[in-house]
Amino acid sequence: MPTLHRQESVFVLELGDDENRFSVEWLKSVHSILDTVCEHDGPAALVTVGRGKFYSNGLDLEWLLANGDQAERYVTDVHELFARVLTLPVPTVAAVNGHAFGAGAMLAMAHDFRVMRADRGFFCFPEADINIPFTPGMAALIQSKLTPAAAVASMTTGRRFGGHEAAEIGLVDAVAEEDEVLSSACERVRALAGKDRGTLAAIKSTMFASAVEALRSTKS
Amino acid sequence: MPTLHRQESVFVLELGDDENRFSVEWLKSVHSILDTVCEHDGPAALVTVGRGKFYSNGLDLEWLLANGDQAERYVTDVHELFARVLTLPVPTVAAVNGHAFGAGAMLAMAHDFRVMRADRGFFCFPEADINIPFTPGMAALIQSKLTPAAAVASMTTGRRFGGHEAAEIGLVDAVAEEDEVLSSACERVRALAGKDRGTLAAIKSTMFASAVEALRSTKS
Amino acid sequence: MPTLHRQESVFVLELGDDENRFSVEWLKSVHSILDTVCEHDGPAALVTVGRGKFYSNGLDLEWLLANGDQAERYVTDVHELFARVLTLPVPTVAAVNGHAFGAGAMLAMAHDFRVMRADRGFFCFPEADINIPFTPGMAALIQSKLTPAAAVASMTTGRRFGGHEAAEIGLVDAVAEEDEVLSSACERVRALAGKDRGTLAAIKSTMFASAVEALRSTKS
Repeated sequence: MPTLHRQESVFVLELGDDENRFSVEWLKSVHSILDTVCEHDGPAALVTVGRGKFYSNGLDLEWLLANGDQAERYVTDVHELFARVLTLPVPTVAAVNGHAFGAGAMLAMAHDFRVMRADRGFFCFPEADINIPFTPGMAALIQSKLTPAAAVASMTTGRRFGGHEAAEIGLVDAVAEEDEVLSSACERVRALAGKDRGTLAAIKSTMFASAVEALRSTKS
Repeated sequence: MPTLHRQESVFVLELGDDENRFSVEWLKSVHSILDTVCEHDGPAALVTVGRGKFYSNGLDLEWLLANGDQAERYVTDVHELFARVLTLPVPTVAAVNGHAFGAGAMLAMAHDFRVMRADRGFFCFPEADINIPFTPGMAALIQSKLTPAAAVASMTTGRRFGGHEAAEIGLVDAVAEEDEVLSSACERVRALAGKDRGTLAAIKSTMFASAVEALRSTKS
Repeated sequence: MPTLHRQESVFVLELGDDENRFSVEWLKSVHSILDTVCEHDGPAALVTVGRGKFYSNGLDLEWLLANGDQAERYVTDVHELFARVLTLPVPTVAAVNGHAFGAGAMLAMAHDFRVMRADRGFFCFPEADINIPFTPGMAALIQSKLTPAAAVASMTTGRRFGGHEAAEIGLVDAVAEEDEVLSSACERVRALAGKDRGTLAAIKSTMFASAVEALRSTKS
């Protein structure tokens, strides 16, 4: 389950030590941790990271299959997580330590910045291969962060991008060696931690208003 | 007139062997060929290509001048072709073998990907020079595939981009030698031919919903 | 105060010789000069430039603090300047000779192109640091000209970009040596000065319709 560590003004949200899929409990825990970060009295920035092979594999498809009657509510909750991270009132960066697939990759896209491990792990939207089209909210989120060419190349192909390929096309902002992914991500937002939260929230909410609207109005 | 060739799962739509302007008959023929490709039982991807000096020079201005009373209907039909290619349920790539001008360049933009001949031929939106402003649908189509800087550089200047310049600014995804344009284009989508068509149609329709809406609601 | 010089078909609008902040008088003067350029009988293109250390530092915050009751009207006027430059019926380029901050940087973004001095001066949106969030119109203007990654990097951080950094991320199209910024900017639009104004106005108005709408409907 997710845990929170603090390195001075940088709050590191560890998404878990397995595939870090979005279970109902996991979603609650992440929101609770985001509350802690946003309510912190003093400079704060957020870094998210996984442990080992995975950043996050996204939706809990096994649970979803067994709980089809709760699908709409579940997708609404996932959309809400994306909308919240997209407009979080503190600087955010995803330290993509390993595989980021589907909604896991979308969570990374919701951050202000992404740093990815250079030598292993894939960044991938497998939707075209697993026959689960993006919801309008999910598509709007991803497209709000990518050039059109990068959106087509990643969203219509199911292609798995290694770190360098992901950086070249702009899925991530930078790559780093395995043992420097987290420190590099922290470094990227440390100096930004003191920004006024009301201002930053207003700026991000204005910049991404249409994606947020799509995320908050989309049905599954 | 347009013809269809098949290389296993890759369907090659040859746009014609002259300037390949969008005559009323040509539009019907292209739609009919797209029907064949989309109704094919088995993996399918689409490559479009011209022959000789031209990919396509776009609108049939001569016919249009002589048939001004049919202009609105004609533009609606051209918009519909763009909207259909933009959301075609199979992977698409334009093999830009030669000049792509105006609506010919727009047709190329409607594909998922573009490969252009490196040494000869121009990719050009001459609208600023021939005093025919883009319709809202046409502008939305082009802008849905380009960075803002590339859109300004190509749409407001009438500039003719050679292959390398077109690739550098992102009008096309890659360049190839004259005799490898078609094979390179085929290569780019061959492995994608097996995608589920309903899924791919849903993904593209969601990604390009606003451009499709502009194309389908625009009057000439 | 702003002055106008003409080099054949290229009209050079000098924004002033100090910080070139947008005073009420300055706004009137700039509009009057734009009238002259747009009403010129013959080919015309617009270059804007500052003198010395500054291109423009943007809003006249001192005046604004002393005249809070006129803030809404003032912001409306600034938005109108941005909307007008964004859709000016002649080719436009900002010769960023020095610092371009806040609304000064936004004015530069409203032009078709930007050339920036390579060795000194910063391009910066300080909004995240001075706790003045972008209005929806301002955000729409900037985002209509940048990739999403460049928008996040510049709009959420307050980062000051030197010329080379600004060019690398796409805030400007090119850099030039100190004594070649103006000539390089003029060169970029000289050949475009003969475009038909009605056509160019229609093209830009269509391309940037949503940003213009946001600028013209936004309240302060």
